[in-house]
Amino acid sequence: MVLQKINASSDVKKLNKDERAELIEDLRQEIISVTKENGGHLSSNLGILETTVALYKTFDFPKDKLIFDVGHQCYAHKLLSGRRELFGTIRTAGGLSGFPNAEESGYDLFTTGHAGNSIALGLGLCAARDKNKEDYYVITVVGDGALVNGLNLEAINASTEKPKKFIVVLNDNGMSISRNRNGFYNFISKATTDKGYLKSKSAIKKLFGKSFIAVFFRKVRDFFKRLINKDQYFERFGFKYVGVVDGNNLEKTAKTLERVKNAANYKAVFLHIKTTKGKGLKNAEERSDLYHSVGKNLKLAGSDECSLGKALSELIDKDDKIVAITAGMKDGTGLDYLDKTHPDNLIDVGIAEEYAVTFAAGMAKGGLKPVVAIYSTFLQRAYDEIMQDVCLQDLPVVFCVDRAGFVGEDGKTHQGLFDLSYTLHIPNMTVLALASKHELKAALCYAISLNRPVCIRYSKSCAGAEYFSDYVNGAWETVKDGTDLTVIAVGANALTLATDFADKYPKSIKVAAARIVKPLDESFLVATHTPVITIEENAVIGGFGSLVNAFCSAHNGNKVYSLGVKDGFVRHGSIKGQLEENGFNIENLTKIADGLLK
Amino acid sequence: MVLQKINASSDVKKLNKDERAELIEDLRQEIISVTKENGGHLSSNLGILETTVALYKTFDFPKDKLIFDVGHQCYAHKLLSGRRELFGTIRTAGGLSGFPNAEESGYDLFTTGHAGNSIALGLGLCAARDKNKEDYYVITVVGDGALVNGLNLEAINASTEKPKKFIVVLNDNGMSISRNRNGFYNFISKATTDKGYLKSKSAIKKLFGKSFIAVFFRKVRDFFKRLINKDQYFERFGFKYVGVVDGNNLEKTAKTLERVKNAANYKAVFLHIKTTKGKGLKNAEERSDLYHSVGKNLKLAGSDECSLGKALSELIDKDDKIVAITAGMKDGTGLDYLDKTHPDNLIDVGIAEEYAVTFAAGMAKGGLKPVVAIYSTFLQRAYDEIMQDVCLQDLPVVFCVDRAGFVGEDGKTHQGLFDLSYTLHIPNMTVLALASKHELKAALCYAISLNRPVCIRYSKSCAGAEYFSDYVNGAWETVKDGTDLTVIAVGANALTLATDFADKYPKSIKVAAARIVKPLDESFLVATHTPVITIEENAVIGGFGSLVNAFCSAHNGNKVYSLGVKDGFVRHGSIKGQLEENGFNIENLTKIADGLLK
Repeated sequence: MVLQKINASSDVKKLNKDERAELIEDLRQEIISVTKENGGHLSSNLGILETTVALYKTFDFPKDKLIFDVGHQCYAHKLLSGRRELFGTIRTAGGLSGFPNAEESGYDLFTTGHAGNSIALGLGLCAARDKNKEDYYVITVVGDGALVNGLNLEAINASTEKPKKFIVVLNDNGMSISRNRNGFYNFISKATTDKGYLKSKSAIKKLFGKSFIAVFFRKVRDFFKRLINKDQYFERFGFKYVGVVDGNNLEKTAKTLERVKNAANYKAVFLHIKTTKGKGLKNAEERSDLYHSVGKNLKLAGSDECSLGKALSELIDKDDKIVAITAGMKDGTGLDYLDKTHPDNLIDVGIAEEYAVTFAAGMAKGGLKPVVAIYSTFLQRAYDEIMQDVCLQDLPVVFCVDRAGFVGEDGKTHQGLFDLSYTLHIPNMTVLALASKHELKAALCYAISLNRPVCIRYSKSCAGAEYFSDYVNGAWETVKDGTDLTVIAVGANALTLATDFADKYPKSIKVAAARIVKPLDESFLVATHTPVITIEENAVIGGFGSLVNAFCSAHNGNKVYSLGVKDGFVRHGSIKGQLEENGFNIENLTKIADGLLK
Repeated sequence: MVLQKINASSDVKKLNKDERAELIEDLRQEIISVTKENGGHLSSNLGILETTVALYKTFDFPKDKLIFDVGHQCYAHKLLSGRRELFGTIRTAGGLSGFPNAEESGYDLFTTGHAGNSIALGLGLCAARDKNKEDYYVITVVGDGALVNGLNLEAINASTEKPKKFIVVLNDNGMSISRNRNGFYNFISKATTDKGYLKSKSAIKKLFGKSFIAVFFRKVRDFFKRLINKDQYFERFGFKYVGVVDGNNLEKTAKTLERVKNAANYKAVFLHIKTTKGKGLKNAEERSDLYHSVGKNLKLAGSDECSLGKALSELIDKDDKIVAITAGMKDGTGLDYLDKTHPDNLIDVGIAEEYAVTFAAGMAKGGLKPVVAIYSTFLQRAYDEIMQDVCLQDLPVVFCVDRAGFVGEDGKTHQGLFDLSYTLHIPNMTVLALASKHELKAALCYAISLNRPVCIRYSKSCAGAEYFSDYVNGAWETVKDGTDLTVIAVGANALTLATDFADKYPKSIKVAAARIVKPLDESFLVATHTPVITIEENAVIGGFGSLVNAFCSAHNGNKVYSLGVKDGFVRHGSIKGQLEENGFNIENLTKIADGLLK
């Protein structure tokens, strides 16, 4: 194995052509085998192997700086940057992260996970480098999906004077092209393949053959071509454009990168490469969308019985004004189900969370009933739009906040631990939390009936399946009665924990499910005359507990202890392990209850 | 006065050419005279008079829908849509809003104020219209500054199949062109004036005169021209491009709009108009930036003695690594001061708050000390970037959160009442609140010395000037000692109120200034054995009071009452009136104290 010899980035430079080819195979096998064991992002990582090796051959990391947008294509980078021996621990508690992580290696500048920030980060880094009179290359690798996120578009647009030694590698694996509805991408890909242009090219050839006038004509044509094609387009934004290069051809990409490196000494370069997502694994190549992120043993995500898509499909059958919107998470949210049943009521806007929300606001104003499904961590990007465009207008947009709470393996950037903190303080917002995914349809019905902004949060796991509510009113459900202490639980894991705890604790404990997180069930709290523990899978600051605490403090003076996530970012691990580590366990609850009751 | 005859939009259609010209004069005089009285956005409103009248002549409002991006150019629209008699009340408590407001008129679809949302809102509205088989035109008016905001760029890019009867009017008043650093705008404006292109045009003319071959050549040229110019550019994004039109020429604009209206029956149209900001008022035309937003008697904003720019200038003198970044708010934040003293240490990225923050994160990683100055309400747009790109990386970026608290006349969209709620729950963030702008430099020194993410919030007014802290440690300052009750104040207005209250209330009251909002001064709270009132100009949910309440609840059990803004959006009015209305007064504090002490 050549891979065994790579302990630092400099080792890649020592390889000859054959060894490099062997290295690609080694990387592929290692990534497939570890992903089989640990789950992870598969097709994105397989597609970028050759380009990653070519980058390592050309540049001098970590002196030069490599930034991956999103970061779900960094496995080969990790394997080449001295983390080979730890690679088997990826995505496990205490092991390597599945995303770039500044804490684990100097090769990872930033701990990333959200799309769209790489060009801005790169430009900031270059600005600092130039001001400090340092000398290194900054390279960002961006997928075609993330390229058109608003933050990247702002960065591309920000200045026509882009810094030297700054290289944006567009990894075009055709995921956006398949949708074929994206203007920016359309512009890049069509400019030189434009029918009209090609027609003129062939007409010139036919008319003049190889004569002098033909040469003249070709010169004129090339002049205009320069004006119209991608070169010109990127020139306007301060880049020299190079492309399109087959990013799965290592040697060709490496040669191009040498030229790009030289060119970058004079001007920022935008390098357009094409790659095949899932390269080298048949199934992953054919259905790279399905193999984007897989579970252990390459288990695929899919719509389950209690999925959002199925619930919405049944609701749309009765009311065609319901329209589902997502931002590049069709499969993950379960909305792919609608592809078959109600394709006209499903819109995937790509990785543009802000647009998804404001577009939904416009739809709601026009009389539709939009349901926006975005993971808790990614919906953060649209915080201002939720407040200004939806809640300030008091428009009937329902947000399905999937992956709320601990999400396990995907790390600090992906935990859904802030959505209560960033939605509860927004006026006009109603917030629901499912105690089980089986409640999703009932919650949707209730949310849509309110005709106002509503968030429905639910966790990744389908735990707590035995609980069910039809949400007919805002009351909290008493799941178990008791007289000494009251535990109010938000979400499935919290409710399961609360009932387990109540069964074991020696005092009489009342357990309630707060399916409606805001507004508070004030009559429940007024009627409560025991100490209270709140449990929520959310930051303790600004969460449900703080609402209960404020209410009790102003009214009956019940002592309140809020169990939530302490002030800090949560590392990757299993959801079970994360719950345990963050005090969501019977031992900790016992200690809290003892304190409150002493 | 022709204006006197306009009581509904249909009245504009009845006017002849001379009356329309007279109407423009009437509108101009009315806007100048009312703005003299009430303050407001002057130059943006004067620049769009002719285009607004042309829109009213061409379309049928409110059946057709008109959306202004940002909304600081809607005065003429208000005067023409049945709100003429109320216009004198604009920006006063209980009067008309200075921005579009759905509550005051059916002509205003959305209550807006933040830049970048109009194209997404318009597209959503069209989607609803088409699904509901309704028939109306949707027109959005966007300034060149707001056009390149990430949300608008996402919307332009979202789909190549733009809806029919959708018209985007780009009101290009050259505010971005003056910066000349913006790629997108550069693209639009340069495509048909490109030197190379013009050169070829003149070369062809010289070579061939008016001969047959010249005609042929011209056809070829025009064919290529179509490919390269703005038409083509916008075609890629699904728009027909029309322009450039002199938007201050009413009759020409009206005629173009008739054609645009017809064209829009087949395809979405992007209409590019040029206008002069401040048109018709000499001073405002010459310095439209200064006259963008004026106070009563057209008083101009300007750097004051305790401005951010001056403070930073002194700090940069000693440390050149400090770089100030803003997002189109150079004058408002006082950073214009640096234009003269340290232009190389000032970057205005335009209305791109997200980019400003992530760019700063990159700079910080590269070894600089960025200070990002953005108003509280606009910084919301970068919530995710603050969390993911700055705080998760624990990078030394200082945020100067100007206009925090009540901001007075600018309405619901502009109040700075959420920044504590959206920053306090972000791990690694330190939050400071000035008790006076005189503390700004000391707070900046302290913030920079922490070498971590810090927010410094301060209000629009320079109240509380007698207070001063050098922030040497995180301790809260006891401004007045007392034994029965403790009032902890965040910010200048709160501190003034607290001391006034303490002087008048019959019991012995301790007053403390919490300049460091997070982390809490825990030793202060542990040593407190009285009931506590917290005061903050922020939403009570998720604010400082909730932190204090949680701490006291978990420790010494002090009763805590949090005075903040109740769950709702705050209407425009004077800051004094807003404080009064929201219970920031001695009467309310007396009631609260009586309750806590009974």
